[in-house]
Amino acid sequence: MTSPTTGRATRKPRRSPAAPVDAGRLSPAGVVTEPGTARIAVDLLGGDDAPDVVVDGALRAVRADPDLHLLLVGPTRAAGALVDALDPAQRARLTLRPARTAVDTADDLTAARAENTVRAAVAAIRAGQADALVSAGSTGATVTAAALGLGRWPQIRRPALAATLPGVSGPVVLLDVGGSMEPSPATLTRHAVLGAAYAAIAHGLDAPRVGLLSVGTEPGKGDRPRRLADPMLRATELPGDARYVGLVEGYDVCLGTRADVVVTDGFTGNVLLKAIEGAYAMAGGPPPDGGAPRAAALLGVAGTVVVCHGAARPADIASGIALAAHLWRRAATDRVAALLATERTDRTDRTTDTEVRTS
Amino acid sequence: MTSPTTGRATRKPRRSPAAPVDAGRLSPAGVVTEPGTARIAVDLLGGDDAPDVVVDGALRAVRADPDLHLLLVGPTRAAGALVDALDPAQRARLTLRPARTAVDTADDLTAARAENTVRAAVAAIRAGQADALVSAGSTGATVTAAALGLGRWPQIRRPALAATLPGVSGPVVLLDVGGSMEPSPATLTRHAVLGAAYAAIAHGLDAPRVGLLSVGTEPGKGDRPRRLADPMLRATELPGDARYVGLVEGYDVCLGTRADVVVTDGFTGNVLLKAIEGAYAMAGGPPPDGGAPRAAALLGVAGTVVVCHGAARPADIASGIALAAHLWRRAATDRVAALLATERTDRTDRTTDTEVRTS
Repeated sequence: MTSPTTGRATRKPRRSPAAPVDAGRLSPAGVVTEPGTARIAVDLLGGDDAPDVVVDGALRAVRADPDLHLLLVGPTRAAGALVDALDPAQRARLTLRPARTAVDTADDLTAARAENTVRAAVAAIRAGQADALVSAGSTGATVTAAALGLGRWPQIRRPALAATLPGVSGPVVLLDVGGSMEPSPATLTRHAVLGAAYAAIAHGLDAPRVGLLSVGTEPGKGDRPRRLADPMLRATELPGDARYVGLVEGYDVCLGTRADVVVTDGFTGNVLLKAIEGAYAMAGGPPPDGGAPRAAALLGVAGTVVVCHGAARPADIASGIALAAHLWRRAATDRVAALLATERTDRTDRTTDTEVRTS
Repeated sequence: MTSPTTGRATRKPRRSPAAPVDAGRLSPAGVVTEPGTARIAVDLLGGDDAPDVVVDGALRAVRADPDLHLLLVGPTRAAGALVDALDPAQRARLTLRPARTAVDTADDLTAARAENTVRAAVAAIRAGQADALVSAGSTGATVTAAALGLGRWPQIRRPALAATLPGVSGPVVLLDVGGSMEPSPATLTRHAVLGAAYAAIAHGLDAPRVGLLSVGTEPGKGDRPRRLADPMLRATELPGDARYVGLVEGYDVCLGTRADVVVTDGFTGNVLLKAIEGAYAMAGGPPPDGGAPRAAALLGVAGTVVVCHGAARPADIASGIALAAHLWRRAATDRVAALLATERTDRTDRTTDTEVRTS
């Protein structure tokens, strides 16, 4: 096999491990519950405080999970700091992949850096050198690199970022939280399908309840995309025995009493997630089960990709790496794709949608 | 003067009292800090649990504020329950205005009821029988009734609902929280002007900082309306010595560290406010200074109107009534309108905007 990006001979990407029969839920802190080696490519230059915060977070992750291997993508010096900090007996679990950054203007430095390293991380997955990737760099750059480099699932034109919050009686999957700024009603509907499959497989939820976020629960509430998506969702068969429960409100994202999966556009989801984080900060800290996550899974691309918040702290990076390892070990990507493939094709699948933006 | 709705001779609406020189801030709980009689029309049939919750809330409000007079708009029986519950010596502070409800279908009952009573409350303001109105009924019906019955301010086609949250170092005004689902960039810009004037006058904020809610702080972040509104806001002179600080994020709504006024569309603002409420509930309760408000001031109409959450509890109704009294005593409507009238006319003022929806 030859890498399409480097032209060099590469290994075929590994198959995900078989899905565990008694798979436990992902804890809100992103603690991995399944065994098995996971090789995660980490974008050392992604994020506002890269590479220091990423190095610190990667160190935490590798210390917390003995079956974790990291492919460090970025400058050799930053990777070296991580290698030096680790117990010599553990250093075999780290691999370096230097990524050059050729940038002319200071203004574009952050975006261009993240794009270069995230592209290198995607290439590593394609080359079979890593099982998943984690980046705290530009969301747009990561989504584009992953979609173009790994491919999209059939019928998915616009991937979604799914964040998991701790609800009153279990996890609540919120999507999209930043991938699609102005999705069409058809995209909202597709994201509901993705979210339902993800909740069933990544979190082991049985027959998840799926809600569409709006300003009230009565049909007809909301803006035009919501008013159009609501009847489309009612007519859509959801995977994983999921059922559509109609419109839900802002509380439901935090409490989860009415839905396990809450679908919204990436603009609303993103500001919502950050507002919840702010509210927990104002209230003196998040609830015991965890607060607003700073890592989200990218759904709709043929690979395991986790996007961390640009302002991620080391603990957030470590959570993101643990989430990526969890998803890989659970074979989440393959199983979600398989679940979608068995789904009944209906009218919403043929609705024209927009392409992934490259900006 | 003749009432345009009843054709009967009416009194002229009272002039707002002069603005107090040492006007204190509105506390997050909506406690009134200025003296002076305020006559508030209360929509007894607005809200999910009307009239019981409204009656209970009105009773709390009238007991807490000795200078408060209430005009109870709704069925006589509900108003009678309130009268009976009040100390006989205080009953002169209550006035009844029976409002009939002629509805045929059960499905439309709630909306039609609220619309009827809120229209009667608006008519009472026009007739000089009340200074302000409070309703927990349909937001759309209240906004429409107020805009049509009281008139809009010049250059305001689409009124906004402004909610005040307690930030780290003072109040944070969030608007719109439900009036405009899909505002144009020009409307977002006008709402920034309204919010700046409101923050300066209702909360006594000196040179408030105004931010536009988006998914990041760098220019260009966000969806199309945000990307277009950002440069418009940079070119707009704001009243009250306010200054535009650029894009802000979800945290800033809760913390207020970067902006005192946060501008967004009514869809995002509404789900955000409810998510913050949910987060506080998950965290074991709101911070000591107060949580997410369930009452919002309607800006852009020529009258003092407060909209309460449909699921308002008695304490929320009482807060809404206290807010209406505070705004009236502070002459907020007249002073905000005067501040806007002195504002330099610029290009954004002439941009065509959509009308108030009547649905």
